[in-house]
Amino acid sequence: MQEILRSQIEKIVSLTDDEFEFVMSHFSTRFYKKHQYVVQAGDAAPNDHFVVKGLLRSFYIDDAGKTHILQFAMEDWWISDPDAYHNKLNATLNIDCLEDTQVYYISIDNREKLCVALNKMEYFFRKKTTAGYIALQKRILSLMSQNAEARYIQFIKLYPLLLQRLPKSLIASYLGISRETLSRLTML
Amino acid sequence: MQEILRSQIEKIVSLTDDEFEFVMSHFSTRFYKKHQYVVQAGDAAPNDHFVVKGLLRSFYIDDAGKTHILQFAMEDWWISDPDAYHNKLNATLNIDCLEDTQVYYISIDNREKLCVALNKMEYFFRKKTTAGYIALQKRILSLMSQNAEARYIQFIKLYPLLLQRLPKSLIASYLGISRETLSRLTML
Repeated sequence: MQEILRSQIEKIVSLTDDEFEFVMSHFSTRFYKKHQYVVQAGDAAPNDHFVVKGLLRSFYIDDAGKTHILQFAMEDWWISDPDAYHNKLNATLNIDCLEDTQVYYISIDNREKLCVALNKMEYFFRKKTTAGYIALQKRILSLMSQNAEARYIQFIKLYPLLLQRLPKSLIASYLGISRETLSRLTML
Repeated sequence: MQEILRSQIEKIVSLTDDEFEFVMSHFSTRFYKKHQYVVQAGDAAPNDHFVVKGLLRSFYIDDAGKTHILQFAMEDWWISDPDAYHNKLNATLNIDCLEDTQVYYISIDNREKLCVALNKMEYFFRKKTTAGYIALQKRILSLMSQNAEARYIQFIKLYPLLLQRLPKSLIASYLGISRETLSRLTML
């Protein structure tokens, strides 16, 4: 199971077996059942989670009680409340499991120790964060400039595997459109 | 003038005079007049820009010809087309100057060289990118969950100095609201 994380890291930097073992010594693993929470708004959120198996989402509940889905994460993706994690704050986001899930998780202190001890991992995390920054900027542009139909078509193109695993109501919430609009679009 | 960049870096890592001189040897400086373009969509966008003096914006023009402002940058901020810069692609964004501007700019190759040569700078860029990631995620949440009034109030709180230097039409474009809505809000 560790091979999935090693393979992601080695797309960016190559590691010896000893180095990979050292990396893994900074992670722990945990299993969750569908519907369980990994992070709850208001609590500490001390870990970043690499998904080994399963499917999760992070979401925000606004003052009016409406749910807004910020991110999904399936195998080979990472998920956290980044502000809470990096700045040691209480969570404003929730993260729960949409399927039975296994994660490798790393605390912020372990992440920083790992970056100091093994420069390759600092490089890896810098590159991953940069890629995440670029993806978020594209999402902002999409929210600002694309209508519901264009956003849905882009979602299908970017995440064909997610489409098969997610109920439509959750895709609608991620795209910021109503369930009715999405139903109309999926009949096109 | 270099002190403004040194001060930003030293909020995250401390540098000796020699180290800072080495850092600066990877940057060049350039002056622009108001209205000049720093990056134009379709061209190469090989540099990241640290603003020494002035005010810029990055924006996207959609297929219908509408302008969407992604970011402003004044003194002590960075601005680039991040996808084009980091992945050596042609720009999809434009960056122009809203005031006479001076920047220090660094090519992606120089940035990577600097990170290899001076690990403190790899740490600095990792931390800055992480902070940028968190800021973008907050903007996505704001676009998804807040109405025009709440977004405007948040903008005033986050960027009081920008408010004084920007025409209202540009603030409206950044917030994704109409000029008429913004005029109504500023009269509240």
